[in-house]
Amino acid sequence: MNEPNPLTRAHLDALRSEFEELSRLQVGYPCNQNFDYSDLLPFMEYSLNNVGDPFHDSNFRSNTHEIEREVIARFASLMRLEQEHAWGYVTSGGTEGNMYGIYMGRELFPDGVVYFSQDTHYSVLKILRVLNVRNIMIKSQENGEIDYEDLRETIRIHRDSPVIFMANIGSTMKGAVDDVSRVRGILDDLAVTNAYIHADAALSGMILPFVDDPQPYGFDAGFDSVSISGHKLIGCPLPCGVVLTKRDYVARIARSIEYVGVLDTTLPGSRSGLTPLMLWYAFERLGMDGFRELVKEMLAVAAYAVERFGEFGIPAWRHKNSVTVVFPRPPAEVMRKWQIAPLGDIAHIITMPHVTREMVNEFVDDCVKHKHRQTA
Amino acid sequence: MNEPNPLTRAHLDALRSEFEELSRLQVGYPCNQNFDYSDLLPFMEYSLNNVGDPFHDSNFRSNTHEIEREVIARFASLMRLEQEHAWGYVTSGGTEGNMYGIYMGRELFPDGVVYFSQDTHYSVLKILRVLNVRNIMIKSQENGEIDYEDLRETIRIHRDSPVIFMANIGSTMKGAVDDVSRVRGILDDLAVTNAYIHADAALSGMILPFVDDPQPYGFDAGFDSVSISGHKLIGCPLPCGVVLTKRDYVARIARSIEYVGVLDTTLPGSRSGLTPLMLWYAFERLGMDGFRELVKEMLAVAAYAVERFGEFGIPAWRHKNSVTVVFPRPPAEVMRKWQIAPLGDIAHIITMPHVTREMVNEFVDDCVKHKHRQTA
Repeated sequence: MNEPNPLTRAHLDALRSEFEELSRLQVGYPCNQNFDYSDLLPFMEYSLNNVGDPFHDSNFRSNTHEIEREVIARFASLMRLEQEHAWGYVTSGGTEGNMYGIYMGRELFPDGVVYFSQDTHYSVLKILRVLNVRNIMIKSQENGEIDYEDLRETIRIHRDSPVIFMANIGSTMKGAVDDVSRVRGILDDLAVTNAYIHADAALSGMILPFVDDPQPYGFDAGFDSVSISGHKLIGCPLPCGVVLTKRDYVARIARSIEYVGVLDTTLPGSRSGLTPLMLWYAFERLGMDGFRELVKEMLAVAAYAVERFGEFGIPAWRHKNSVTVVFPRPPAEVMRKWQIAPLGDIAHIITMPHVTREMVNEFVDDCVKHKHRQTA
Repeated sequence: MNEPNPLTRAHLDALRSEFEELSRLQVGYPCNQNFDYSDLLPFMEYSLNNVGDPFHDSNFRSNTHEIEREVIARFASLMRLEQEHAWGYVTSGGTEGNMYGIYMGRELFPDGVVYFSQDTHYSVLKILRVLNVRNIMIKSQENGEIDYEDLRETIRIHRDSPVIFMANIGSTMKGAVDDVSRVRGILDDLAVTNAYIHADAALSGMILPFVDDPQPYGFDAGFDSVSISGHKLIGCPLPCGVVLTKRDYVARIARSIEYVGVLDTTLPGSRSGLTPLMLWYAFERLGMDGFRELVKEMLAVAAYAVERFGEFGIPAWRHKNSVTVVFPRPPAEVMRKWQIAPLGDIAHIITMPHVTREMVNEFVDDCVKHKHRQTA
């Protein structure tokens, strides 16, 4: 290869300063910026590929399948799924994990109807379209949780069809947790036995296992599959995540492929060998106690943010065990300076590990300052 | 974060030596091992995310959308698609690109039937199942190309249904190129106007634009979409690729999402910002002339391999413009030492840029040695 020309280098330098500046002001998205994978940089020299099922040998041996199985074991334990029944893989992000879960539900119940709340992540509409599956959107409560009465009534009307329920374990906008135990209760009550629950636990899947009084979550609460992001709470330079489900289910869709000596049980074919390594490394370095501390501090900063907003009469709020602080949509100047995700008349900040009390102060001050300018 | 414990470091070191050793013997898969992205390592410090449509602004500004558009422009030019009609994005690999292409075909023709040859990559069966679309597998010729007569007859019987054709532009096992012009001719002849052609050009999509006498390929030859891998000819530490299609088509599936201020037109939601940067950097460093030289040398090594096998009476062969050298399945010892992808009674080596004449010699010698042992 030729040396890159000076323009290329200059372009890269400019880009890097931009990212440096932007990450200093990142309070609106659930992406932890505090990570250090410098120990893993030497692996960028190899063409790694975790093609196929991580629980099955591969002819393509430059893989991190063994590491990936350890990562899956960690998450299975967090999600209260017994190791011998657990199956999963490291995905390229939350959407892939959610698509996998709904796909699995549809394979088990081809004539099933997918139920999900209005507050479900926007990508669900794309997933349902791609998977070509029947679906009904259910109303949400004002707080972002699903409207259980609407859910019950809608399932009751369609009792002839199996139920595939997509639960929000921490909704995108408001951090609401759908009560899976209550949903299981509704299904029991209506005598619907053909049911599958997939959980989108993108962010809260790494919070609830580390708090003292979590909302119902996990396979013991009724999950059949769950998608958790890796680039959110753990933090990663590129998007990734895990999808977990039960080994029995996967056996139904497995096909053995001689070409690479793998089972083609994952949604993609070729998969990154680096992202499992990053997640594994994060668990090695932090450990369970480290994550517990991290979550505790995030929740403390979230509580602090609600308080600070309150001092200036801005009605901010958050759910129990949530780091998503919801408040009225701020002025455009604030949205431009900080990377803020608005929806209609609300917005949120998410107190990820890199979000300090000082950043919260600066953000609240900006909201107050610009609000005064607007009304001045 | 704590310092990693010595066991973690030791584990990483062991893994790295294993990859070092394995990449020295990698001749069976189309993954170029000659790359150097050390200039990009500083970007591993940031949480980059190319969420959404690269041709649309995003509220999540730590992205490389601008770079990604340049990458798409490069590939559009290679695939003979005019810039103003071109749309695409950087995928997590070939399967995602193929799923996207078939998805697009199905959205344009919901009652269409997907036709593909027996030699199509194994993942097509999963893709068709996920997309829940009607499909018919067509016979292949012995050389891996589709059987055009079987294709014609099968389409003729189903003339009431739109055609979604998946073309192999370099088949996985034999490097065969389906003649897209001939397929367009068959469609014209049968007066099938509702037709869509998706091309799987995983490897050859980066070869054919650089040879003097290519088989028909590109949008001027009839592609409606194409998937090309990034980790194959270009080389990358993690799988990636591009999918290209026409802007008009994408407009039909676009939905605007306020939350991140994006159009949700890609299959995943969150997407890597690093892989577009790597592909862009590779183009910057090598340039078109560099790729032309690279392809020329790869083809020369492939020709050399066929010759060397021939000297020992091993009937190896390859298609025109192909770096995939096919030969009888070698003894198990050879498969174990080298990373070889067999299928039934054949196998192949693929002369990617890191595969030298010396490696070819060593490989052929091993085949001969172990064959003699077997028959001894």
